[in-house]
Amino acid sequence: MVLEVAVLDVVPGRAEAFEAAFREAEAILCAARGYRSHELLSCLERDSRYLLLVRWDTLEDHTEGFRGSADYGRWKELLHHFYDPFPEVEHYVAPGAGA
Amino acid sequence: MVLEVAVLDVVPGRAEAFEAAFREAEAILCAARGYRSHELLSCLERDSRYLLLVRWDTLEDHTEGFRGSADYGRWKELLHHFYDPFPEVEHYVAPGAGA
Repeated sequence: MVLEVAVLDVVPGRAEAFEAAFREAEAILCAARGYRSHELLSCLERDSRYLLLVRWDTLEDHTEGFRGSADYGRWKELLHHFYDPFPEVEHYVAPGAGA
Repeated sequence: MVLEVAVLDVVPGRAEAFEAAFREAEAILCAARGYRSHELLSCLERDSRYLLLVRWDTLEDHTEGFRGSADYGRWKELLHHFYDPFPEVEHYVAPGAGA
């Protein structure tokens, strides 16, 4: 299992629209090969900050499969314009399972 | 449910010792009131970076109960000297459940 972690800073005032767009985009994520589960959570300390956690079978299921898929264009179109700055994404595994 | 999120940058060369200390410290965390579950994961992109996710019943179970407990001194003693810089901790909830 690989956990994708992205802290998402949404443009102030756009949080509600972002959440609505995310509800539409979720179906794309859930249909991806290697997808296991995800959570979108809202930060208590910073307005308009979210955390996206996605569990994948492998790193490549995210970085190659999902990002290289035909549906990824729609994912970007729905979501990427909400972010400022554009998020850094990291991947985590159980200690000892990496690299 | 409140998710505590901490990105932990461990002093280079100390990752193995940190993981051993964390295995000892885990018992303190698991015994805390309001604790639900936790994961310690290792970053694929950055050496010596870890992610700690802890699920709590409430924010205060972490910020007041755990940090104010007698056992927290031992937690700090075991772990805090490994971190550089000292981590920022954030808390996340399901959208709409916050504040």
